[in-house]
Amino acid sequence: MTQTIKVALLGGGTVGSQVVRLLIENVQDLSARAGATLEVVGVAVRDLRRERPGIPTRLLTDDPMALVTRPDVDLVIEVMGGIEPARELILAALDNGASVVSANKALIAEDGAVLHAAAERNSVDLYYEAAVAGAIPLLRPLRESLAGDRVRRVLGIVNGTTNYILTKMDEDGADYAEVLAEAQRLGYAEADPTADVEGHDAAAKAAILAGLAFHSPVSMSDVSCEGISGLTAADITAARDSGFVVKLLAVAELTDAGDGVVVRVHPAMVPRSHPLASVRDAYNAVFVEAESAGQVMFYGRGAGGEPTASAVLGDVVAAARNKLAGRPGHAHSVYADLKVLPLGRATTRYSVSLLVLDRPGALAAVAAAFAEQGVSLQSVRQEGGLESGEQDASLLVRTHAAAESSLQQTVERLRELAEVKQVVAVMRVEGGPDA
Amino acid sequence: MTQTIKVALLGGGTVGSQVVRLLIENVQDLSARAGATLEVVGVAVRDLRRERPGIPTRLLTDDPMALVTRPDVDLVIEVMGGIEPARELILAALDNGASVVSANKALIAEDGAVLHAAAERNSVDLYYEAAVAGAIPLLRPLRESLAGDRVRRVLGIVNGTTNYILTKMDEDGADYAEVLAEAQRLGYAEADPTADVEGHDAAAKAAILAGLAFHSPVSMSDVSCEGISGLTAADITAARDSGFVVKLLAVAELTDAGDGVVVRVHPAMVPRSHPLASVRDAYNAVFVEAESAGQVMFYGRGAGGEPTASAVLGDVVAAARNKLAGRPGHAHSVYADLKVLPLGRATTRYSVSLLVLDRPGALAAVAAAFAEQGVSLQSVRQEGGLESGEQDASLLVRTHAAAESSLQQTVERLRELAEVKQVVAVMRVEGGPDA
Repeated sequence: MTQTIKVALLGGGTVGSQVVRLLIENVQDLSARAGATLEVVGVAVRDLRRERPGIPTRLLTDDPMALVTRPDVDLVIEVMGGIEPARELILAALDNGASVVSANKALIAEDGAVLHAAAERNSVDLYYEAAVAGAIPLLRPLRESLAGDRVRRVLGIVNGTTNYILTKMDEDGADYAEVLAEAQRLGYAEADPTADVEGHDAAAKAAILAGLAFHSPVSMSDVSCEGISGLTAADITAARDSGFVVKLLAVAELTDAGDGVVVRVHPAMVPRSHPLASVRDAYNAVFVEAESAGQVMFYGRGAGGEPTASAVLGDVVAAARNKLAGRPGHAHSVYADLKVLPLGRATTRYSVSLLVLDRPGALAAVAAAFAEQGVSLQSVRQEGGLESGEQDASLLVRTHAAAESSLQQTVERLRELAEVKQVVAVMRVEGGPDA
Repeated sequence: MTQTIKVALLGGGTVGSQVVRLLIENVQDLSARAGATLEVVGVAVRDLRRERPGIPTRLLTDDPMALVTRPDVDLVIEVMGGIEPARELILAALDNGASVVSANKALIAEDGAVLHAAAERNSVDLYYEAAVAGAIPLLRPLRESLAGDRVRRVLGIVNGTTNYILTKMDEDGADYAEVLAEAQRLGYAEADPTADVEGHDAAAKAAILAGLAFHSPVSMSDVSCEGISGLTAADITAARDSGFVVKLLAVAELTDAGDGVVVRVHPAMVPRSHPLASVRDAYNAVFVEAESAGQVMFYGRGAGGEPTASAVLGDVVAAARNKLAGRPGHAHSVYADLKVLPLGRATTRYSVSLLVLDRPGALAAVAAAFAEQGVSLQSVRQEGGLESGEQDASLLVRTHAAAESSLQQTVERLRELAEVKQVVAVMRVEGGPDA
């Protein structure tokens, strides 16, 4: 084996040091798979004085731009994160003729179109398997294996922190704040958990997934997003009592009319029998419904230095092979160019919990509010009320699939009804035969 | 789009007619993804007089060799099945410079090495995603996404018929013969179910998976194989009572010493909490443990015309793109060239159910039989016996992980012991923290 592929790294943190360690330890295997010797020629870091176990000191530099524009660099691995300077460094690397492997979901979700165009212009690869669902091989199968099929829907649990929190709330009946504090103590949640618990991290991944699944440009700002910080122990318990589990889902789907896609992130009730329901703790999974393939699911660890490094190295081997062959691999295509439509155009199901006055006509008024919007009901459960000696009655209504806008308007109408004392909880239902 | 990729099909059965239908119906999408117009130029079938809905009559031919050696054919899809003439037709197609997409697990498992060599010699692709686990994108991720990692173990449910039967036995407590008859009535099992229930179909898939996961040549004859026809309702119930579910598993793993791989198919008890336990009915799933990625699982429909056609078309798009680029994609590599070792070299765990004489020293004799072989015990449960007024006692022993050969010798020794009236059942245990 005489050829050498020269590799430069941007970032020497948790993921970066794992990538360097594996590139050095497994150089024989990796080189056999790539078809050329993979040689790390430099690692750009911010602080040269910090100890970086596993990274030989002679490789370190604090001039990332000089590193990525070296004429002999074939491949740049970007694991520094953040928008700038990662963006300008990646563009410089691509324009320098290097292929780029990135784990930077925020950047790809925000500015993927510009980066893809730069890769195409320079006939090099831009791969980012590690950006979504860590070690789970997911983007390549979506891009290539399902290339002969039509994806209708992607449902994913793509944020480990929130899935850990929701799993604990489900198992222990604990409240959100309590579990979050525990997760922070254990290192599963960051000191400032906003990006995770408000769904922003999941929204970036949803944008990337939607773009690949529907061959269309989708950016982070197209994603409607709602986090889990408003959930209570009562919400989780109520779901459990009805045979559901609450998950933070990233959903991307074709509209029924086929005129566009809707991409959204929000908590949803999933039936216990659904494959996504058994995805616990910090695990991730992405469930894909395609026209011919039917239901397919990918499951694995969504984060962590080693799993992320595994995904990065898979991309490195692929990009190295393409380099040797003198042409890039299958790029992200946006030929379908579907419009991204607002949340109101989604089709979904609601579970609505109400406190109503227990008097004749209350149920009829509630039922009429749904009927006015053309929403049909799957089940209605009433508890309490005059017979049990209480003044108010609890109503739990679950709808059939309907337009999100109709469901939202129904809930607004319910809030105005004299018969409704309180709209206690509203949650979407996903997964199962009717969705 | 001016370029055209000419496609020939071998086989016009269930899968073939779905492939043709989708190629014609979705020609625009598929061509956009492939980068050239995909044109079906012929479909070779055995009987020209049979009705083949969806396949235009002008495309039909009963001379497959003439079709695959046409100088203008770029790509051959083989969905006829069986060893010959599929083998010689594929070889002729490859030597004619056409890339080949096949769904033929038996052929790939038996003679993959020769076919891969022919593809490499002719610089064309040989893809067969549909050969294992139908629509689940699995082989490409194993070959490419995990290319930077080291796979240690693959555990798969890869046969839908047996998984359907085992699911029904688990759910209904019914006996094997009863459920098999029902499965045959419903079309889930064939009139002659041997290939499925004796594990031969799973063994072919295990050979393909093992070859890809360990970058080594593995053929069907390397796989040790045991089916489900010997299982009783009592076996399944006993497993369920202990928190396990019985699955027919295809297992491929590195030995602890790293000196080779063992590939096996047999029924095994899987803990209910393991992701494979919730794979029900005719669904398939493959669970991969890799050094860095950790645990990853792929789930979906394992068979059926449409799912299989989806996998075939994914390969067709990839092979077409490679054709246009003038070079094949990443081929199956066997650089690691690991030896396939006999079953005795596997590391596994046993669950052994015994009927012993209820007299002092019986338990000691049983425990000694395990200790002699260096097998340590995870749990022992005794039921019945003198205290409950019975003459015999039931012992359920579960071991820690040990060499398969030691476990087999232990069971032989148990059968000879005077204290043991009967070795009632022996089953391997897979999945979970200790395996």
